[in-house]
Amino acid sequence: MNSGKWVFRFDEVPPAETHHEKESLRALLGGKGASLAEMSRIGLPVPPGFVITTDACVEYLGSGGELPEGLWDQVLEAMGRIEEATGKGFGDAENPLLVSCRSGAMHSMPGMMDTVLNVGLNDETAAGLTAASGDERFVYDAYRRLIQMFGSVVLELGDGAFEESLERIKRDRQVLSDAEMTASDWKQLTAGFKQIIRARTGTEFPQDPFEQLRMAVQAVFGSWNGKRAFDYRNASGIPHDLGTAVNVVSMVFGNMGLDSGTGVVFTRNPVTGERTLYGDYLPNAQGEDVVAGIRNTESMTGLGERMPEVARELTRICRKLEERYRDMQDVEFTVERRKLWILQTRTGQRTARAAIRIAVDLCNEGCVTHDEALLRVRPEDIDVFLHPAFAPRAKDMARDAGNLLGRGVNASPGAAVGRVVFDADTAEKWSREGTDVVMVRPFTRPDDVHGMLVSRGILTIEGGATSHAAVVARQFGVPCIVGAGGMELRETKLRLKANGHLVREGDWISLDGTSGEIFLGRIPTVESDLEKQEDLQTLLSWADSRRHLGVLANADHPQDAVRALAYGAEGVGLCRTEHMFFEASRLPIVRQMILSSDETERKQALSRLLPLQQGDFEGLFRVMDGRPVVIRLIDPPLHEFLPTEEEIRVRLRLCRTEGRAQEASELQRTLATLRKLHESNPMMGLRGIRLSIVMPGIVSMQVRAVFEAACNVVQEGGTVRPKILIPLVGHVNELKVIQPILERVAVEVMRERGRRLEYMFGTMIEVPRAAITASQLAEVAEFFSFGTNDLTQMTLGYSRDDAETHFLLRYVDEGILPSNPFQTLDQEGVGRLVRIAVREGRARRPNLEIGICGEHGGDTESIDFCHRIKMDYVSCSPFRVPVARLAAAQAAIRAAPLFAEGQIH
Amino acid sequence: MNSGKWVFRFDEVPPAETHHEKESLRALLGGKGASLAEMSRIGLPVPPGFVITTDACVEYLGSGGELPEGLWDQVLEAMGRIEEATGKGFGDAENPLLVSCRSGAMHSMPGMMDTVLNVGLNDETAAGLTAASGDERFVYDAYRRLIQMFGSVVLELGDGAFEESLERIKRDRQVLSDAEMTASDWKQLTAGFKQIIRARTGTEFPQDPFEQLRMAVQAVFGSWNGKRAFDYRNASGIPHDLGTAVNVVSMVFGNMGLDSGTGVVFTRNPVTGERTLYGDYLPNAQGEDVVAGIRNTESMTGLGERMPEVARELTRICRKLEERYRDMQDVEFTVERRKLWILQTRTGQRTARAAIRIAVDLCNEGCVTHDEALLRVRPEDIDVFLHPAFAPRAKDMARDAGNLLGRGVNASPGAAVGRVVFDADTAEKWSREGTDVVMVRPFTRPDDVHGMLVSRGILTIEGGATSHAAVVARQFGVPCIVGAGGMELRETKLRLKANGHLVREGDWISLDGTSGEIFLGRIPTVESDLEKQEDLQTLLSWADSRRHLGVLANADHPQDAVRALAYGAEGVGLCRTEHMFFEASRLPIVRQMILSSDETERKQALSRLLPLQQGDFEGLFRVMDGRPVVIRLIDPPLHEFLPTEEEIRVRLRLCRTEGRAQEASELQRTLATLRKLHESNPMMGLRGIRLSIVMPGIVSMQVRAVFEAACNVVQEGGTVRPKILIPLVGHVNELKVIQPILERVAVEVMRERGRRLEYMFGTMIEVPRAAITASQLAEVAEFFSFGTNDLTQMTLGYSRDDAETHFLLRYVDEGILPSNPFQTLDQEGVGRLVRIAVREGRARRPNLEIGICGEHGGDTESIDFCHRIKMDYVSCSPFRVPVARLAAAQAAIRAAPLFAEGQIH
Repeated sequence: MNSGKWVFRFDEVPPAETHHEKESLRALLGGKGASLAEMSRIGLPVPPGFVITTDACVEYLGSGGELPEGLWDQVLEAMGRIEEATGKGFGDAENPLLVSCRSGAMHSMPGMMDTVLNVGLNDETAAGLTAASGDERFVYDAYRRLIQMFGSVVLELGDGAFEESLERIKRDRQVLSDAEMTASDWKQLTAGFKQIIRARTGTEFPQDPFEQLRMAVQAVFGSWNGKRAFDYRNASGIPHDLGTAVNVVSMVFGNMGLDSGTGVVFTRNPVTGERTLYGDYLPNAQGEDVVAGIRNTESMTGLGERMPEVARELTRICRKLEERYRDMQDVEFTVERRKLWILQTRTGQRTARAAIRIAVDLCNEGCVTHDEALLRVRPEDIDVFLHPAFAPRAKDMARDAGNLLGRGVNASPGAAVGRVVFDADTAEKWSREGTDVVMVRPFTRPDDVHGMLVSRGILTIEGGATSHAAVVARQFGVPCIVGAGGMELRETKLRLKANGHLVREGDWISLDGTSGEIFLGRIPTVESDLEKQEDLQTLLSWADSRRHLGVLANADHPQDAVRALAYGAEGVGLCRTEHMFFEASRLPIVRQMILSSDETERKQALSRLLPLQQGDFEGLFRVMDGRPVVIRLIDPPLHEFLPTEEEIRVRLRLCRTEGRAQEASELQRTLATLRKLHESNPMMGLRGIRLSIVMPGIVSMQVRAVFEAACNVVQEGGTVRPKILIPLVGHVNELKVIQPILERVAVEVMRERGRRLEYMFGTMIEVPRAAITASQLAEVAEFFSFGTNDLTQMTLGYSRDDAETHFLLRYVDEGILPSNPFQTLDQEGVGRLVRIAVREGRARRPNLEIGICGEHGGDTESIDFCHRIKMDYVSCSPFRVPVARLAAAQAAIRAAPLFAEGQIH
Repeated sequence: MNSGKWVFRFDEVPPAETHHEKESLRALLGGKGASLAEMSRIGLPVPPGFVITTDACVEYLGSGGELPEGLWDQVLEAMGRIEEATGKGFGDAENPLLVSCRSGAMHSMPGMMDTVLNVGLNDETAAGLTAASGDERFVYDAYRRLIQMFGSVVLELGDGAFEESLERIKRDRQVLSDAEMTASDWKQLTAGFKQIIRARTGTEFPQDPFEQLRMAVQAVFGSWNGKRAFDYRNASGIPHDLGTAVNVVSMVFGNMGLDSGTGVVFTRNPVTGERTLYGDYLPNAQGEDVVAGIRNTESMTGLGERMPEVARELTRICRKLEERYRDMQDVEFTVERRKLWILQTRTGQRTARAAIRIAVDLCNEGCVTHDEALLRVRPEDIDVFLHPAFAPRAKDMARDAGNLLGRGVNASPGAAVGRVVFDADTAEKWSREGTDVVMVRPFTRPDDVHGMLVSRGILTIEGGATSHAAVVARQFGVPCIVGAGGMELRETKLRLKANGHLVREGDWISLDGTSGEIFLGRIPTVESDLEKQEDLQTLLSWADSRRHLGVLANADHPQDAVRALAYGAEGVGLCRTEHMFFEASRLPIVRQMILSSDETERKQALSRLLPLQQGDFEGLFRVMDGRPVVIRLIDPPLHEFLPTEEEIRVRLRLCRTEGRAQEASELQRTLATLRKLHESNPMMGLRGIRLSIVMPGIVSMQVRAVFEAACNVVQEGGTVRPKILIPLVGHVNELKVIQPILERVAVEVMRERGRRLEYMFGTMIEVPRAAITASQLAEVAEFFSFGTNDLTQMTLGYSRDDAETHFLLRYVDEGILPSNPFQTLDQEGVGRLVRIAVREGRARRPNLEIGICGEHGGDTESIDFCHRIKMDYVSCSPFRVPVARLAAAQAAIRAAPLFAEGQIH
């Protein structure tokens, strides 16, 4: 690929215009390298530097740690060019050049890999630089930073000893902040740091700048395979074989006094999406201090007040970057003695709310197209608005009760309620045991990520809006509050003191990530009001006009249907009629129907169920008012409606003890029926159409209820086109037996009522054989609905009830399966059957309507699949409907070129 | 099809030479009509006549009972030609022509449809015929027969009243047999029969011969849809829409004195296959008397003694028929005053033993090719030799104990033991409840068939070797003894008196269908010695050289392997290693392994199992001596090795009552494990490779045992190429995880032992996803074995443990499924997945070895499928191996032209 060119100077990288060119460049140079080169090309103030390619990293790691041939010569040559550009010399005692070595992979992995700053400082250049700059304090602060980073990162000694040493000096000097440290303090610390390295490694801190550089480059390469980077990639779905580039850039210094500083700025507010610069600025500091969140920062207003002309230039540059990159940017900058340097730009992480607002705004500003805007929002982001928030009254009550513990920066919105844990491992352990946790930390670091991912919420005492905790939490949609400085954390004692309360591990707290408030106890939550989200509604309306897939909802009760409509569903794609049977008032009748030994009693029970089911259907039809409503006939095995054997046995013992003979004999009968109904593998047993064939009375009643209800609603002036869905069909003959029986009932009701309705009978495709023989089924069935839960179960032979706990999650953890096939459709396996069924069903009946119900209908990736194979609709939980609307639009956008190129058809 | 020609005279039917021509002719004229025409063409003495086509019948039945247009005119014309040929006139009082009307469908359905003889007799022609023949007795015997058949069949009055009337006269005259009846007796009976018709129908017996003929033809047509014909077709797999032809043939009379007679002769012995004429002859009788088995017959020797020249001519004609039809024939003939007439010939039903001998003999005689001989024997017939016979000593003991009840004609061979029932309905009822029954009847009639099919054995007091009972029993392979005249049956009292014993309904009896002996009580049975069946061995050796499919056996123990070899298996296609775990001495160790909470204890249990498994494998390898041995690793879920929860609870209660605390606590632990292992759908649970991934220790032990055993046998000088089969694979990654672990174990053992063995790792294809992704699996697996039991289960979603009893048998009964898919492979559904897997597996790995294990591997139809899709082998129970060898040969023969024509490839 690279044939020996491992190093690119920023100013020699060619411009990338097409998407493909940009991607190739990012793959080779990493995101940061490509953007530094690009910024350099468009004339922004970027410090001179070069990139060592990701190819070099891959080669290096593959060879077990050998720098690729020719690399070092190219580095030396590029260093020469930096020396020329800056007029400084690397290792030159008079006018020394210092550089940074930063990782930069194709996909952003903030803070997950290593960085070494101030490379080039040694005893000699430090002295020279002191002489040149006249600022000994700055020089030895920089030198001690180099040694500290070199020690902890390159020599892998960890940060502890260095931090302790710093704290000790601060204690001795009785100072609180770094700013109060003097030149001689730093100098003493520098010596101390060197001593630490000597003591721990038996060698000296290397004085040769080139040796420093080489070792730093190798350390950055190596950090690609570090545990935290590996975990992060697993969590984010980034491939492990890409490697990282290394950016070597001449140092600029934000810690050269109060006319220097460093900051991170978002070109729009990453929390709300508002079009104002948003970020942190730290006067007289190096960049790492901001990112790590270990010093409290000023907002951007601080910079404007201190150096208005620099703030104006920064604003101008931010607009330019947004225009160039056509998205909100996250920009790192440093001011060195009033000179603004841009160190990095990248697409900014943002909250779901901000993602939506920014996409809509950018489109309205004419910066991106509707399609681009739609692709800018992850469908999952919408989910945030469908999850509970706190009831406002409830929060007031908690406040009045004195349970407000404190406030912090509202870093990632949403309500979180959980038990307090003080470390990531406990978070992981408790959460695996089913406990909701809120992780409380002084601040977070990359090796806390595994705990953050499983927490309901994250609270840190320190840090700002762009600290590690905030960035990660926003990316993964976990509510998060940072910088809650008013609270006192005693980590070792597992205690948090706040507002007079003592919070112990395991106590409940509630976070409002949207407002930044922290409460003691569990605050009740309510659903978010999607309809008030104007930007989201705009985006979803764009999605609706872009998508081809219909989006229907699974709704069993009229109230579900109301919510489904509110969320934009176009109809009911699945009404599970047996859910109506489980209601407390109906269960006794259902049981009577199952248990009755004589036909009369059974018929009586069925006729008592009839008006109840009819009422449900009327409600659904009224709400849906002419929209499609697909009603699935009874599916589960009958034993599901009865109490368990154990339960009956207990009651039986009680009855006998108390001498209630009559009741005991009834229980005995139930037990006998239960045993008769017992199956070793009920999921593959007497259910669905099999049950209909053995006991056609139940489904006949259901069909009667559907048509009676439909006639009633039509009589009121409504429109109804019932679609009856028959479950668990595996052989066309099953349909040939049952469908005519049911059609007779339908015709009978319509004749009795003097109405003619359009109606359809369809079949679930959920048994593998149904998919394979879809052509035959389509002779009889007028529509297909894929029940991919069952289809997955039988195609993979994974019991839906047991697989996850017994082996499936382990399969996913160990990478045997790419994901849980009950969440994301197994396209290779189950998907192939689905494709066969769609193709052959349509070949037999060209106007065959085809949809999917079940979990996959609300899963983004699976929706994409459904679009590509040209299903007519997906049906999912009402809560997933908005997500599905966007996912369907994105699928249409993504597939368009593929259809056009004939790659799919 | 026929465009108006409904009637064919025997002498105008064109010769049919090709197979296709012959089949078309048989379809149109029925088997009997086609053969009468053919016999007429080759110059045999066939009475003049004609056939009304099956098309006419279908048309007639389809129209609801209207004779097709033109039919009657054609009948009249053909009748005119018979009158010309015989010089007699239909309804001519001077010289009356009489005809028979017989059914004759494409497929033989002996006795299942109606026949009317002597059509044309009325008061006038009877008087005329008496004058012409001078034999009043014969004429009125014939006349009363016409009225009786017309009444019972055409007028649907049943036989009862007529038989009662006959019995009454016999009682009055104090005569025992028909032969003793005088002319005036018959004349009186004729009048009585007419009176019965008048009384029961209110109309006279029709005197117009053409009305008789028309009604008789319609009755024969109608009998195609009679219940017994319908049931028979269901049992035999004959389609219901073919219709029957009607043969109208001029009557010849076997009851014109002792120089007349009638008989049925097989051209070879249908019981043993010997090349001697075999049959029944009844002097002075009509044919129906023989077939119904209601009069005891003479053997063919009788005819030879009475009329040697007729017997010689019959022998000559039989040879000619065999030459023409190239198979053993079943010939009906009548001698009318020393003139031999051939009334019918058809391929003779025969016992399994006879089928084999006849096929081998015909081939050795040069009459048929090897391929034809192989196709002449139904693979199922071989099964007879694999089923138990009585232990000879046991029979002697029963005889000595005085339990021999009597003897009869050995009509269908084999041993049968069951409880006595005296009617078909009880036979059906009891057998459905799981009771083995032997049905005892005076004689059987077509409406007894449903009882015969479910009986272990059939015993009739009357009838001969070609009686209804014998023919049906042989066809369906049910052991049968007929004509046990020494026994007294009191049907109404449900009692059988024989040899001083009184046998009641429900008592056990044992029949030896091979010897004809009947015993009281249950006689122990032993397996048949296949190797002594010389003809069968010859046939199977031909099959072996003809078939392409390998035939292997499923064998779990060395002794199974010995039997498999004896039955001709070429190797072991499936050794289910867990079957070894279930042995009483091993189960405790297996349980210890499952229940142990610490790793050391588990390893200890595994190391105790190792030498036991190793011993089993050594035994298998020694027996198989270099032949392939496929060893499947543990498959079932672990809970199968533990006692049930109920069992433990009972023991626990006992322990507590008796204060055995230590034991109770162990039981408690078992219970806890059982609950942890509990799955709602264990068939789709933690088993097969999933178990191996979760607990790799067990399979590692198994692989070690295999290779240790193999090394030991190789050390002794044997040859072993172990094939390890991994069950329940659904994703290639499962194999990628487990196979390397197991290969490491194999390599380790071989290194320790200093041996290098050829070995293979393969995968079961039993999860639908495995079939769909076979291409990926073939990257890793070196062979495939289809576990079609599980594949059927998951593809259809039918729990193997429950489906039959809960709905599946009902599905088969009601025709929703053509057959039980667990017995015969569902080619449309499951078969399609199998085809995909074979095609795509081979595409990925061209030398991929592919076989099937499980029930379908021994099923004839499924074996045919396996051949057509080019599997390498089938593996089945040792008992099915000979069946499979023949089935595989037949598959190869049948498929050859299809492959040649490119219809399959």
